Amino acid sequence: MTTTHFTRMLALLLCAGGLTQTRAQSKKLLGYADSTAALQLQLEARFDKQLSSQHIGETIKALSSRPHHIGSAGGKAVAEEILQRFKSYGWDAEIVTYQVLFPTPKERLVELTGPTTYKALLKEPALKEDATSGQEGQLPTYNAWSADGDVTGELVYVNYGLPEDYEYLERTGVNVKGKIVIAKYGHSWRGSKPKVAQEHGAAGCIIYSDPKDDGYYNGDVYPKGAFKNEYGVQRGSVMDIVIYPGDPLTPNVGATPSAQRLDRLQAPNLLKIPVLPISYHDAAPLLKALEGPVAPEEWRGALPFTYHIGGGGKAKVHLKLSFDWQIRPCYDVIAKLIGSELPDQWVIRGNHHDAWVNGASDPISGLAALLEEAKAIGELHKQGYQPRRTLVYCAWDGEEPGLIGSTEWVEDHAAELKEKAVVYINSDNNGRGFLGASGSHALETLVNEVTRDITDPQTKVSILARRQASDVLKAATPKLKKEKLAKQGIAIGAMGSGSDYSSFLQHLGVPSLDYGFGGEDAGGEYHSIYDSYDDYVRFKDPGFNYGVALSQTAGHTALRVANAVRLPFDFRKLYETVNGYVNELTELTSNLRESTTIENQLIREDKYQLTADTAKHLLPPAAKAAVPFIDFAPLQNALVALDTVTLALSAKNNLTGAAFNKALYQAEQQLLNDKGLPSRSWYKHTLYAPGFYTGYGVKTIPGVREAIEQRRWTEAQEQIGFAADAINRLSAYLKAAAGL
Amino acid sequence: MTTTHFTRMLALLLCAGGLTQTRAQSKKLLGYADSTAALQLQLEARFDKQLSSQHIGETIKALSSRPHHIGSAGGKAVAEEILQRFKSYGWDAEIVTYQVLFPTPKERLVELTGPTTYKALLKEPALKEDATSGQEGQLPTYNAWSADGDVTGELVYVNYGLPEDYEYLERTGVNVKGKIVIAKYGHSWRGSKPKVAQEHGAAGCIIYSDPKDDGYYNGDVYPKGAFKNEYGVQRGSVMDIVIYPGDPLTPNVGATPSAQRLDRLQAPNLLKIPVLPISYHDAAPLLKALEGPVAPEEWRGALPFTYHIGGGGKAKVHLKLSFDWQIRPCYDVIAKLIGSELPDQWVIRGNHHDAWVNGASDPISGLAALLEEAKAIGELHKQGYQPRRTLVYCAWDGEEPGLIGSTEWVEDHAAELKEKAVVYINSDNNGRGFLGASGSHALETLVNEVTRDITDPQTKVSILARRQASDVLKAATPKLKKEKLAKQGIAIGAMGSGSDYSSFLQHLGVPSLDYGFGGEDAGGEYHSIYDSYDDYVRFKDPGFNYGVALSQTAGHTALRVANAVRLPFDFRKLYETVNGYVNELTELTSNLRESTTIENQLIREDKYQLTADTAKHLLPPAAKAAVPFIDFAPLQNALVALDTVTLALSAKNNLTGAAFNKALYQAEQQLLNDKGLPSRSWYKHTLYAPGFYTGYGVKTIPGVREAIEQRRWTEAQEQIGFAADAINRLSAYLKAAAGL
Repeated sequence: MTTTHFTRMLALLLCAGGLTQTRAQSKKLLGYADSTAALQLQLEARFDKQLSSQHIGETIKALSSRPHHIGSAGGKAVAEEILQRFKSYGWDAEIVTYQVLFPTPKERLVELTGPTTYKALLKEPALKEDATSGQEGQLPTYNAWSADGDVTGELVYVNYGLPEDYEYLERTGVNVKGKIVIAKYGHSWRGSKPKVAQEHGAAGCIIYSDPKDDGYYNGDVYPKGAFKNEYGVQRGSVMDIVIYPGDPLTPNVGATPSAQRLDRLQAPNLLKIPVLPISYHDAAPLLKALEGPVAPEEWRGALPFTYHIGGGGKAKVHLKLSFDWQIRPCYDVIAKLIGSELPDQWVIRGNHHDAWVNGASDPISGLAALLEEAKAIGELHKQGYQPRRTLVYCAWDGEEPGLIGSTEWVEDHAAELKEKAVVYINSDNNGRGFLGASGSHALETLVNEVTRDITDPQTKVSILARRQASDVLKAATPKLKKEKLAKQGIAIGAMGSGSDYSSFLQHLGVPSLDYGFGGEDAGGEYHSIYDSYDDYVRFKDPGFNYGVALSQTAGHTALRVANAVRLPFDFRKLYETVNGYVNELTELTSNLRESTTIENQLIREDKYQLTADTAKHLLPPAAKAAVPFIDFAPLQNALVALDTVTLALSAKNNLTGAAFNKALYQAEQQLLNDKGLPSRSWYKHTLYAPGFYTGYGVKTIPGVREAIEQRRWTEAQEQIGFAADAINRLSAYLKAAAGL
Repeated sequence: MTTTHFTRMLALLLCAGGLTQTRAQSKKLLGYADSTAALQLQLEARFDKQLSSQHIGETIKALSSRPHHIGSAGGKAVAEEILQRFKSYGWDAEIVTYQVLFPTPKERLVELTGPTTYKALLKEPALKEDATSGQEGQLPTYNAWSADGDVTGELVYVNYGLPEDYEYLERTGVNVKGKIVIAKYGHSWRGSKPKVAQEHGAAGCIIYSDPKDDGYYNGDVYPKGAFKNEYGVQRGSVMDIVIYPGDPLTPNVGATPSAQRLDRLQAPNLLKIPVLPISYHDAAPLLKALEGPVAPEEWRGALPFTYHIGGGGKAKVHLKLSFDWQIRPCYDVIAKLIGSELPDQWVIRGNHHDAWVNGASDPISGLAALLEEAKAIGELHKQGYQPRRTLVYCAWDGEEPGLIGSTEWVEDHAAELKEKAVVYINSDNNGRGFLGASGSHALETLVNEVTRDITDPQTKVSILARRQASDVLKAATPKLKKEKLAKQGIAIGAMGSGSDYSSFLQHLGVPSLDYGFGGEDAGGEYHSIYDSYDDYVRFKDPGFNYGVALSQTAGHTALRVANAVRLPFDFRKLYETVNGYVNELTELTSNLRESTTIENQLIREDKYQLTADTAKHLLPPAAKAAVPFIDFAPLQNALVALDTVTLALSAKNNLTGAAFNKALYQAEQQLLNDKGLPSRSWYKHTLYAPGFYTGYGVKTIPGVREAIEQRRWTEAQEQIGFAADAINRLSAYLKAAAGL
């Protein structure tokens, strides 16, 4: 470096520092006066100084050094290690134990018995490039909560196993009654696949990872590259968490030793048929044996042969599974730093610690960031800092089999949480790339404010600006790109399920957020023995810099909420978002009406028969009942009221008392419907729920949306009433709280 | 069958017959008085009675019994056999011979020389299930008109080898200068691939059939199913027919023995680099050897490994090709049946007879239908029928290497054809499924009238109704489906290139049509040794019923035109279609302007850099010059005039004289621009041409459209003038002819 160059750089640095100082001093923060805003930003800058990417890397390596699923010795050791860390950082910490059901495999067999024979390996091999891949104590490849079963039957290929795949199957004349279906991973949550198969009368279900979705089609395979090799298998839960998550034997209550328990065979969220995940190496001989109709284009994967659906009775499969159904301990680690002024207002932050195997990415990458936050806050605490509100940092056990640790803790502390929980901030696996943020939309402004001040490790713009750039480029048309370019900030996503926020938000109405980085960390390690430190450090976040970014994002959010004079809720964003959802629902209904009318005309006028290839015998689709007009006025009127109230509330920024703040964070509870959703009363939020058939995927205003999608019109009308009531409750509540 | 049932059926049959009679008697036909319409329909019914599916099958078997490419003994024998058939049917027939260049392979070598080695087989094996697949005299797998060459270089994968693929390649930093590219068949005409490669400086080009596009991905492979097996290769011409087709040494003139010939190395439509097609068996080791960037999703095929682009210099290929560049005889068979009243008005019907190998489908299936028409008309002639106008039935040689036989005949008889040719009706390969029809839009009404009276062999509705049903189902949205349902009749396509109509329509302005059935005859036999009778009878048109349907469609059209009192041109349809094209062009320009503005903003604001995966080093696209506003008024005003004239002309249906009829069929010549298209003056039609980079694919109003697509704005404005002039010439001409 030349002297001139050095001088110029120094000047730039000083200048940049000065600018940052000025900007920080003049910056407005929601929930803060100008003076306290500057202090808060200084605190966050001190917090940042405590974060170390190297330490995050060390934590990931340490906590993923052995298999540590729920109920294992490794799992217990990890919980204890986390407990010690929290304590060493100066937090009050304890392990809270629940007693929960968790099945592990006793016997696993998949074999093709005709027309040729093949016995599936069901085994991921150890690799010399992956130090932990040959360890003892790994859970074998399986789907937790499969039923025990020993079934033999004809094999039928059902694509992704979605309801619409079975509609197509019906048109081909192939049915699955008493047969074994083979479905691809992807396009729906894994648990939906055996559930839909069971609804259609299948006797068993095999799920495999097709190389098109998760394998060589996407990139070089492990260990050369990050993608799934032919032996890799995605383990995973098939508990029907869209009915309820947590211990299947103790819905709605904590799984304490004395809790009343259901008979396992009566648990409504457990399957009746056996299901097993397999690799594409094991799937290939099975699929190749199929005859019958050629699978339609959208069904075809990347294996090097023609995909057939089956039918005709030739390909036979034997599937035999049994499990050890034991009650096991579930160790949640709960750490607290009591608030100086409002100790009974809790800012909760969580990430699970249990993994399917080593779980360097899932969940340790997120947990390491959480622990780094706890360490940094602990350090500030030692220097004299105390949050205004209480911080509660949690490391959950049993997330993988069904969000068990978090759900049991939430159910066990439901009354207390409804009183005290200000916000729940979740994370899970984390990697290189773009900010992902979803949650309660009253928190959208906060998320935008927090993320505009955090620098992306690669591009050096803010993580908000990088995510905005991605939103713009992903927009499909020039028109949509233009709209995105003009938009200020980002929209946060709505929450479905698949991580520990579910019970907080959807069961109790605690305002929640979920953060994670990704998009440049693609690979095939998910829920396999290859989700290891060796894999992580090559393909996920090599410098652990996105670990620091996650610590900053979640940490700043927690501190910003904990110290706020007025809690940073912005109900205008909630109003705007819900207004968008209602527009979607009216459009969905109109489109469904239009397409149903046309489809029925096409069927009535024999267009399908005239167009069908007579050599292929594809039946026309069945006609559907006409779509009636529905009264959306209750929802629309409720939104008019919410518009008025939230506008007035935004203007009244002099309200800062403890009672008003409590009203702000309890407001989301007004959106709960005590009855819950149709056929799944555990889910009480009227705005957000995982889809009944999509699993992790969210359905917004779920009662109404799913009734429309599934063409239950009376129910749709009733659910419009419930959703409107909830919004009206919220409006009235906010009006009263603000004295409007 | 019970007696009751039999009686009911008989009644139905009689009733149906009665209805047909009534319907035929009252039916209006364009160009016919009511009385003559009935007679014409009776004639066509008599024609139909002469058609035999069994005989068509026998013709296909006989004429595809041996390899018969241009210049081969088999080809000469087929031409003589066709001549004898025409004569035996009572036609005046002769063989017209041209002397044309046609290269056959002397040496073919493709080998991977590093990092591993592999020598390509370049051979399709004989199959016991395919009786002709092991015959002597087959042309080896090659691309005719490849340059001679012996090159060694790094291999680069270029997807389909489209111009936009090279734009992406540039963003990856991989270039092809001096290298050998490997491109997939599909998404552009094969000749465009080496042409674009050559434009980018490549030293050689390999084209292969990926199993995703043409192989097991689509269905079971031959001989189990119809699709391309791992050894199958698509032969084919890479002559740059979009510059000009026919003998490359004699553009614009017939290749008579005395014609002046270009030096082959100066022929502007011949490549400078070597190119060879290979099978996916041969392509796999080459592609597998590639490293460098992973190919983007849209580039990936169905071979079972990760597709890489290459770069880095590791994968080396040696490509060595030499050819026997001989002048060979080209045998066109021309048969005439002289018209009784207007012998100098010619209704021309053609199909080629040369094949790459046996060509049961391509071209014999279409030729067999043509010969069946000639036989039927010959029979009617023996019974006393004579057409009002002269019928000219043609079987072309040398279509496969570059539409040679038809082009040389047309160039040789240009002056006579401009005077006499009323219409040219083309067909080529034919199979089971749906009517395909394209051509001059003034003939759209005729096509609709003809096809509404022909019964689909499978569904028993008219071939028009079946095609309409398909158009409806293929429409992408309910709104478009609704529009299609409301539409009367079908739109015919515009003609690009790829069969023998090109010189008639695009060089001379002879109104043209192209017919063929397909859509339920998919397979991988195209231009391979497996395009055989054995393949055809299993997978293409097992009962030869679509052969009969093609004879009916083309035969009725020919007879309808030949006997018409007033020629059945409907210039309203031309007006409506061209009006649609002009709307497309204005929309295309607006969209291009909008997308360019947004793209340039994204580039300027670094959105691509912010979003790019920093581990992948993908450069942002290059900014493009802003799209100016263009004056479409000359075209729009020309269309207003054409609207007025064609409306008036439709109303004046008392004009029937010979001179007026001649004006009707010569009208399309007004649409020619004597200068031709920019950089390809052979193509003179201002409405229809094959695309400069799409090859077979049509570009409508090509001078304007291609200038816009390629962002040459001055040229676009100039071409708008030429197209407007042409339309104005047509309006003035029709006005004068009709005395308006």
